[in-house]
Amino acid sequence: MSTINKQIHLVSRPEGEARADNFKLVETAVGEPQEGQVLVRNHFLSLDPYMRGRMNDAKSYAKPQPLGQVMQGGTAGEVVASKHPGYKPGDTVVGYGGWQQYAMVEAAMPGVMRKVDTAHIPLSAYLGAVGMPGVTAWYGLMKICQPKAGQTIVVSAASGAVGSAVGQLAKTRGCRAVGIAGGADKCAYVTGELGFDACVDYKAFMGTSGDPKSLYLALTDATPDGVDGCFENVGGAVLDATLARMNAFGRIALCGMISGYDGQPIPLQQPQLLLQSRLALEGFIVSEHMEIWPEALKELGTLVATGKLKYRETVADGIEAAPAAFLGLLKGKNFGKQLVKLV
Amino acid sequence: MSTINKQIHLVSRPEGEARADNFKLVETAVGEPQEGQVLVRNHFLSLDPYMRGRMNDAKSYAKPQPLGQVMQGGTAGEVVASKHPGYKPGDTVVGYGGWQQYAMVEAAMPGVMRKVDTAHIPLSAYLGAVGMPGVTAWYGLMKICQPKAGQTIVVSAASGAVGSAVGQLAKTRGCRAVGIAGGADKCAYVTGELGFDACVDYKAFMGTSGDPKSLYLALTDATPDGVDGCFENVGGAVLDATLARMNAFGRIALCGMISGYDGQPIPLQQPQLLLQSRLALEGFIVSEHMEIWPEALKELGTLVATGKLKYRETVADGIEAAPAAFLGLLKGKNFGKQLVKLV
Repeated sequence: MSTINKQIHLVSRPEGEARADNFKLVETAVGEPQEGQVLVRNHFLSLDPYMRGRMNDAKSYAKPQPLGQVMQGGTAGEVVASKHPGYKPGDTVVGYGGWQQYAMVEAAMPGVMRKVDTAHIPLSAYLGAVGMPGVTAWYGLMKICQPKAGQTIVVSAASGAVGSAVGQLAKTRGCRAVGIAGGADKCAYVTGELGFDACVDYKAFMGTSGDPKSLYLALTDATPDGVDGCFENVGGAVLDATLARMNAFGRIALCGMISGYDGQPIPLQQPQLLLQSRLALEGFIVSEHMEIWPEALKELGTLVATGKLKYRETVADGIEAAPAAFLGLLKGKNFGKQLVKLV
Repeated sequence: MSTINKQIHLVSRPEGEARADNFKLVETAVGEPQEGQVLVRNHFLSLDPYMRGRMNDAKSYAKPQPLGQVMQGGTAGEVVASKHPGYKPGDTVVGYGGWQQYAMVEAAMPGVMRKVDTAHIPLSAYLGAVGMPGVTAWYGLMKICQPKAGQTIVVSAASGAVGSAVGQLAKTRGCRAVGIAGGADKCAYVTGELGFDACVDYKAFMGTSGDPKSLYLALTDATPDGVDGCFENVGGAVLDATLARMNAFGRIALCGMISGYDGQPIPLQQPQLLLQSRLALEGFIVSEHMEIWPEALKELGTLVATGKLKYRETVADGIEAAPAAFLGLLKGKNFGKQLVKLV
């Protein structure tokens, strides 16, 4: 009797908001690994905002997620069978197994999977602070914002997997770290547990009124010396407010613009600020900068293992819960890194 | 009997569009140079779009032009009296003499004035192709766009003092140079005389209809391989169209946004393209990069002296004509570098 492998497929593309019926649960049989293949049981799926972009059939940085196939995504798990000399049953690994319980991995392909040590770092952290989100934070902050001691760094979606690492890394460089997050509980966490110097609750200031001016004033209170580096995950009114607070020669790492992921217009209201303040802005995707991953992972791993880089996880239970958890992530219902636990 | 010095003062700040009555003609007496001073008779005034920003009393990169004082600006002229050992009557000089017939210059102040050789380069060119506009083109193109042979560079306000140099410099680097300009005559000049590969007449495509889509389609025809470098002088719909044509890892030198200089909203409609195409954008002011001026002026001077860098001038006659010429510049009525000839 073969083992069942439950998978989530993308079966239709969103028109506007992504919906649960864009996804479908499919059951297949788990096969036997052929020469060079490794069978991995996924313990955790990583849910990340970038996946929303791939659901569209539009020109973007990544190829669209094909319809009728397993949703792509990062995973952490355990080898259960191997016909590759580098892996044996029981090895803990991270890779790109997708939204399914088991993944058959062509282990010889470069970058497809790596073994990880769970003695000092929990397996799930390799999908967050010591994985793609952490390296994203590290790259955008270090290479684009280029923080110097005494500067002020603002990061939006500050309680999220990426944002929480940005602010904590900025603190290690002697910066003032200011977050923007949605909700008093998230802001309290960002300043209280993560050690940011301040956090602005954009929901309190934007809320239903949608008044960007009040958000700007709140951010002004939180950044008395202006803003030198902006790590942007949200876009729209949040970016408008930050832009208006930036000092001359400020630097902006454009990592995400989740406020526009469902196709909403998110015009930048005052692009002339980019000129007036002589700002440098760069959009980036961390997978295109593989050369910095070893250095970044080394620092992130050390910080997590020594308790200096904190993170929070929201864990959905079971593969069936993945679509709803993902839709919640897009609305900011998660708190920290959004995972799905399969085992 | 003392000589009269006619000056143009800024006497009020614009509300919306700049107007002739923001300026006032004032007559003063020319004095005698004191120790260290040099009296220069201005032959040419340089009129430049950046001056519009200084007319406002707003936070920007430069201090506002003070009310009741001579309008600041670049000038080229001839020394008529000197009490500084470095200058003697008859020397041709460029500096920042302002909108007036005579300037008393504290010659020892660094950067305030320099002697220029008019044997191979006309005096007026030191206010254009071999002056601030030329160096602006050089810095934005070379240091921000970083053109490589075979790439496509798009520049807006392509027939202007800065834009015309950008495209011709791009050609020297083996690039495809594509201009955006207002009017068929300007476009014909840009391709016919300046040697750009193509030029899009934004007035023909935007015109009264104001349809950004048709501008985008025209630019698409002119940039079959997309756009790798954008040198932006205009902003608004022109920048929106260029942004949508940019290739991955494209680079944008943000030099000016003249479409918004009177306070019109000029939102960037699709900032998410900066992320999706992983673009790098930088706003800059050439006076903050003095370290590159010698290298830039050397190349620009050689190109002009050898006839390889062409330019056109629109010359208004007499100091009284300066305000109207400046207001015309803001509306694109000039063709090439806008000057005022005083002698």
